[in-house]
Amino acid sequence: MQEVRVFAPATVANVAVGFDILGFAIQRPGDEIVARRSTAFAGVRITAITGTGTKSLPTEVEHNTAGMAVLRLLEHLGLQHEVGIELEIHKKMPFGSGLGSSAASAAGATVAVNVLLGEPLTRESLLYFTVLGEEVADGSFHADNVAPCLVGGITLIRSNESLDIHHLPVPPSLHVAVVHPEIEILTRDARAVLSDSVSLKTAIRQLGSLASFITALYTNDLPLLSRSLQDHIIEPQRKTLITGFDAVQAAALERGALGCSISGAGPSMFALCDSGYLAQAVGQAMQAAFQQEGVDSQLYVSPINQRGVEVLSTTE
Amino acid sequence: MQEVRVFAPATVANVAVGFDILGFAIQRPGDEIVARRSTAFAGVRITAITGTGTKSLPTEVEHNTAGMAVLRLLEHLGLQHEVGIELEIHKKMPFGSGLGSSAASAAGATVAVNVLLGEPLTRESLLYFTVLGEEVADGSFHADNVAPCLVGGITLIRSNESLDIHHLPVPPSLHVAVVHPEIEILTRDARAVLSDSVSLKTAIRQLGSLASFITALYTNDLPLLSRSLQDHIIEPQRKTLITGFDAVQAAALERGALGCSISGAGPSMFALCDSGYLAQAVGQAMQAAFQQEGVDSQLYVSPINQRGVEVLSTTE
Repeated sequence: MQEVRVFAPATVANVAVGFDILGFAIQRPGDEIVARRSTAFAGVRITAITGTGTKSLPTEVEHNTAGMAVLRLLEHLGLQHEVGIELEIHKKMPFGSGLGSSAASAAGATVAVNVLLGEPLTRESLLYFTVLGEEVADGSFHADNVAPCLVGGITLIRSNESLDIHHLPVPPSLHVAVVHPEIEILTRDARAVLSDSVSLKTAIRQLGSLASFITALYTNDLPLLSRSLQDHIIEPQRKTLITGFDAVQAAALERGALGCSISGAGPSMFALCDSGYLAQAVGQAMQAAFQQEGVDSQLYVSPINQRGVEVLSTTE
Repeated sequence: MQEVRVFAPATVANVAVGFDILGFAIQRPGDEIVARRSTAFAGVRITAITGTGTKSLPTEVEHNTAGMAVLRLLEHLGLQHEVGIELEIHKKMPFGSGLGSSAASAAGATVAVNVLLGEPLTRESLLYFTVLGEEVADGSFHADNVAPCLVGGITLIRSNESLDIHHLPVPPSLHVAVVHPEIEILTRDARAVLSDSVSLKTAIRQLGSLASFITALYTNDLPLLSRSLQDHIIEPQRKTLITGFDAVQAAALERGALGCSISGAGPSMFALCDSGYLAQAVGQAMQAAFQQEGVDSQLYVSPINQRGVEVLSTTE
């Protein structure tokens, strides 16, 4: 195979109840990644990065999440001195938005290259290399965006160290509105605002919320899901970074969302809803509330994406 | 109906992963409660309390968990000035053992009286009054022992305030060994040893463990249950109150337990196992390890009790 083009979806990490351990994929936006064989060199080269705000993204393989993920994959396969791979990264989602942009590029790249090489590894086996790639972006080894991007659905991570990942069931009517406001939050600022400790009482409340959320997914109990979708730990600390947060959340809940919180490290916000119609209406209400604060935004409405990275085309 | 006799089982609260929010019932030990109509008075009287170590238990209704639970139930039904009820409390489980002794008496009493009155309320509806009764014992409103004692199985409490309780599935092969060592821990000491705060990192690990435990129950994935059954928050602080804890836990795991931790506020310890044979062997290994430290103990082996309080006999 000479060339593979894939789509890698945006993801919502944390999901209010599961900081660093839960995530799900949405239908769009997402990145497109092209992997192409080259006989001119061995190893990995990044030949193009396109999209808004991508001037700051490094084309040096060692500093690029997609580049590093593919390099680690080739090393594992013992092919780094035998195979030459060109990568094109077409960013089609906002950068630094809390939608797993760097994870998408890394996941898309490993899937594309795996297909290019005749699929020596399963989709699940690509996770390790993809997480190693994403580590370049923020220096921490965690899979809450990468896992759902790669395999789709709602994923639970028991332990990031051992990549003990599990698929959770998706209630069939579940849809999500994701609103990306034009506010900039750096991931390191989003981390810095968090206290190192949490009161025991708050931790217990969060444990109750998380356990009930998982139970709600397994029993398709959307009223319970709604009662459970509460972030007692992170949201109260991070919401101050998002202009209009309280008004936007209130607008979502008033319009009928099951719950509404911050996507990943923000500033994007997500609302879970029990139909696509409702998700559209909720999303527009959220946009209107941001607009009231003078903040422009983009809205993405979709069911939970159950497929993860998708192969768009291959060239023999 | 003139008289009702019930059995109210012991319960294991916390279950390593879910401090204050998880509990399950076991087959034995348990209390027997007798409720009898009297025409000599209106209200509630405690006519007998039997069993070892029960001299300290109050017979004044207002200070007794079972008495208060029944009084609140009668008040709710508007019968406190019309109906006279005598209660006998036969304690057949060690007191202050971390096995939900006070919860069992309260749950047994409300079920017995409800049956005596022709079942005006459902079993679930008795929970509120039973928790009010147990509040007398330790001053806090929580249902982690009362809920599984009343209805059986493994129960999850999203919120103690709203008594938002859910049945979790029980893997069919699951058995439990409970070992009660002859060590005294007062509930207030067990609370006092706990720090008011938790590191964010530890809270995240606990969230991962809890979510995976719930997932393991729904998918009957016992290896995952085993990997999940870790208490990062409470056990490290409380185990110092239990002579021989580390050796007993190690003995359980070495013999093949899926996990082993403290039952409720201790000193009892429980081990989950994937057969009754194994639970028996694991329990004996735990007893031997306690004995090495010079601590005598009692062993109780059973499947998860799916029935909760049981009616033993009724007299018309």
